[in-house]
Amino acid sequence: MPRDPRDVLGAEPFARHLGVELIEARPGYAVARLMVGEHMTNVNRVTHGGVVFTLADVAFEAASNAHGRVALALNVNMNFVKATRPGDCLTATAREENLTRRTGLYRVRVEDASGGLVAEMTGVVYRKEDRTPGS
Amino acid sequence: MPRDPRDVLGAEPFARHLGVELIEARPGYAVARLMVGEHMTNVNRVTHGGVVFTLADVAFEAASNAHGRVALALNVNMNFVKATRPGDCLTATAREENLTRRTGLYRVRVEDASGGLVAEMTGVVYRKEDRTPGS
Amino acid sequence: MPRDPRDVLGAEPFARHLGVELIEARPGYAVARLMVGEHMTNVNRVTHGGVVFTLADVAFEAASNAHGRVALALNVNMNFVKATRPGDCLTATAREENLTRRTGLYRVRVEDASGGLVAEMTGVVYRKEDRTPGS
Amino acid sequence: MPRDPRDVLGAEPFARHLGVELIEARPGYAVARLMVGEHMTNVNRVTHGGVVFTLADVAFEAASNAHGRVALALNVNMNFVKATRPGDCLTATAREENLTRRTGLYRVRVEDASGGLVAEMTGVVYRKEDRTPGS
Repeated sequence: MPRDPRDVLGAEPFARHLGVELIEARPGYAVARLMVGEHMTNVNRVTHGGVVFTLADVAFEAASNAHGRVALALNVNMNFVKATRPGDCLTATAREENLTRRTGLYRVRVEDASGGLVAEMTGVVYRKEDRTPGS
Repeated sequence: MPRDPRDVLGAEPFARHLGVELIEARPGYAVARLMVGEHMTNVNRVTHGGVVFTLADVAFEAASNAHGRVALALNVNMNFVKATRPGDCLTATAREENLTRRTGLYRVRVEDASGGLVAEMTGVVYRKEDRTPGS
Repeated sequence: MPRDPRDVLGAEPFARHLGVELIEARPGYAVARLMVGEHMTNVNRVTHGGVVFTLADVAFEAASNAHGRVALALNVNMNFVKATRPGDCLTATAREENLTRRTGLYRVRVEDASGGLVAEMTGVVYRKEDRTPGS
Repeated sequence: MPRDPRDVLGAEPFARHLGVELIEARPGYAVARLMVGEHMTNVNRVTHGGVVFTLADVAFEAASNAHGRVALALNVNMNFVKATRPGDCLTATAREENLTRRTGLYRVRVEDASGGLVAEMTGVVYRKEDRTPGS
């Protein structure tokens, strides 16, 4: 019986450490959510770029690995649009734009609670023959 | 008397939370270091992309904000070259490639303890008139 | 009487030289089209990356400059999905994702005649105070 | 007897059409040069982004294909630093940052005649098993 991909993909250590919740994960699509904490800010007192990136990366990783084969990120490109702050709830939605035997292309949109665009990312993976651990 | 930029830039909450150490920070140049922890891995059991990114972002943020004006990241692009694991010590070095009144361009190289290339990033900032907090 | 932005934006020398046709251009949105010629290939005998890029760039430039202020590209990121060949008709559609007083973020989708994704680009501009020439 | 890679790589149709000269090409390294023509400008009367990109792309293509296997660009990221004009002579130098069996990472620096930074690009290729045509 196939396991729910969220069981595997949602259990990854760094996402859990940060409090990122994997809401949905299926081949080529994933949604992740995070409540920004007080310890997640940068020198300018807004949400750290690394936090926004990690949230997007969790959705990207889940969408690309949910096919069951190890997908390794080669390149990510992120544009930051809107600063957020502790207490804000951010949602990242990853969608597959293209999939070949060896590569995949994904777009991730990060929004705040009112649907405003916070950041957007595109990411390219290289797909290995190996199975994603636990899948 | 000007303060050591590391006092300000090194004290940012998320870098501290993760254990990123700001080794050096001056206008246009910064070095940050991190020992990868067990809780910093992803579903494929290697260092999470968000961890590598955050380390690079701390160096980028320090190099660009050390001029004393708020520098906001507009775009970052990262290429991942080599997987690392808990126990590895990573160093990120940010260098300014260009600076105008309103924008700045930076390159960050992330290496492992043996000097091997782990990832590289380029980042673009928009420079506000406001002073960097604490500077 | 305001001029049709296509008169100005469509008359740029390199687009004209290559045979790029600006189909539509208004603030934040533009469509450009190109028939790939025999002289537009690379060493692997498919459409040159520079040709696909230029087509996307023309749409990006038109959408961002149609506001009437000079918009200078700071960063572009392009993912190539599908190779095309001489005789193929490519269409690039640029859409504004974000606009501030000083910056703009655009996405461009390049498709072949059957609507298949050929490449996608994101681009960031810095907006000067100067008027776009001819506007 | 191995042919000079410039014979193959320098003979590509679009580079030749534009007047891009391939100065040097060996596995992992290439230099290309272009004199900016009057027909190579954009709406703001500076060198078109597509021209700067194409020049960098030719060097990237040569450095990555000079290994003798077809290298297809997956992603390119370009930062524009300095506007140039007709009559300016631009040089693009591509260097390999990483090479695996299946992927390659390159950086390209575009300079004007006085060595000033005009733009910089990073590019990722996927390497096929096929031989580069003519190699």
